[in-house]
Amino acid sequence: MKIDVLTLFPRMFEGPLTESIIGKAVEKKVLDIEVTNFRDFSDHKHKAVDDYPYGGGAGMLLKVQPIEAALEHVFEKSDRKKSRVVLLDPAGEKFDQKVAEEFAQEEHLVFICGHYEGYDERIRQYVTDEISLGDYVLTGGELGAMVMIDATVRLLPDVLGNKQSALSDSHSTGLLEHPQYTRPADYKGMKVPEVLTNGNHKLIEEWQLKESLRRTYLRRPEMLGNIEQTADIQKLLNEIKEEEE
Amino acid sequence: MKIDVLTLFPRMFEGPLTESIIGKAVEKKVLDIEVTNFRDFSDHKHKAVDDYPYGGGAGMLLKVQPIEAALEHVFEKSDRKKSRVVLLDPAGEKFDQKVAEEFAQEEHLVFICGHYEGYDERIRQYVTDEISLGDYVLTGGELGAMVMIDATVRLLPDVLGNKQSALSDSHSTGLLEHPQYTRPADYKGMKVPEVLTNGNHKLIEEWQLKESLRRTYLRRPEMLGNIEQTADIQKLLNEIKEEEE
Repeated sequence: MKIDVLTLFPRMFEGPLTESIIGKAVEKKVLDIEVTNFRDFSDHKHKAVDDYPYGGGAGMLLKVQPIEAALEHVFEKSDRKKSRVVLLDPAGEKFDQKVAEEFAQEEHLVFICGHYEGYDERIRQYVTDEISLGDYVLTGGELGAMVMIDATVRLLPDVLGNKQSALSDSHSTGLLEHPQYTRPADYKGMKVPEVLTNGNHKLIEEWQLKESLRRTYLRRPEMLGNIEQTADIQKLLNEIKEEEE
Repeated sequence: MKIDVLTLFPRMFEGPLTESIIGKAVEKKVLDIEVTNFRDFSDHKHKAVDDYPYGGGAGMLLKVQPIEAALEHVFEKSDRKKSRVVLLDPAGEKFDQKVAEEFAQEEHLVFICGHYEGYDERIRQYVTDEISLGDYVLTGGELGAMVMIDATVRLLPDVLGNKQSALSDSHSTGLLEHPQYTRPADYKGMKVPEVLTNGNHKLIEEWQLKESLRRTYLRRPEMLGNIEQTADIQKLLNEIKEEEE
């Protein structure tokens, strides 16, 4: 996979790109990532990238020209038709695991990170996706791009050491993950549930499914609508509802 | 404000902490941020921080001891009772602008970033908040912590140059932001709407409110439930519904 990032703050990516799973994917040659400062593509004599909004208002807006020119540069090396061009935008579609899975199928992703107040509306003509990280406001798109890249790259083949790991997490199975415990069995009086230490795998699996359902029921009940309601699951959910009353 | 981050990958924070709004807040002495590697607090002879899960399963879990010891270290310098201790966890409460606003009122925030498969359940005994960035799976909590810190710190007094900027963004007003334009008025045939260039401020404000409502109606209709439905807004929404049919 090739990923291009267009940003005014390329140095923000330094730690995250080398220290994280993204760095591992690059090492394993599963990923090629390039960070481009679109200020370099400004045709303004002082390399300005932003300007005042028409109609007044606080703050500055990113101009179309530098971003369009940076995209042209990116597409000298990649096929525009095979690329997803993602604008990080709080008014965009919300990023979730399904979007990450979609991204993981692509050959080429381009992330455009804004800063300041916002974008000139006409920049949207050049993108395929407008995506928001969540219902909160960030100073810029850089951290959002890193999050989306991390969520995507860990799904690529051979990136995570253990395939199971990518699958069993919260949000991948449609349920929140059950409680988990590691040694010691007793930490300052807090004990590991007995069922997990007695080696009966059928009982352990049942406990894990039930506690996964319980956590989802208590914290994110709306997620239960997304899973198949088999007879087993119905029975466990009824038990949980009684126990939690 | 004081922020402590507990992580196994302190170098991931290098670029983001110096290059972003977080760096500016530190410069302005509005924020004091410290990143601690909790591996340093492991009592294991090889400084191990994780171990296999009881009951089997893929991956490793973070042990309680190193994190508890790192928290003890943090609280040597801060009052535990005045601290919010946030566990980054995909099964936690979803982070949103309201949580960021709450965090911005605090004296001291501690973020615990996991990695690997998950946490020993007993770590939850030591935290005040379990928070998820969104419905997607990340390799670790580091990027999530950076996002939450960015969203929080930009709300602190004197951090953003322009107070208005923090308020008018998408999600702060309860509506998505209206389209915005900057120079040139004509970019390769794409023109700025005339109303924005003719200097009539009443018409401009009306256009901005209407387009803000339109974008919210088209992309995030559920957000309209959160705003006060005055007669003006009702009228504009009716116009929009007719226009978009």
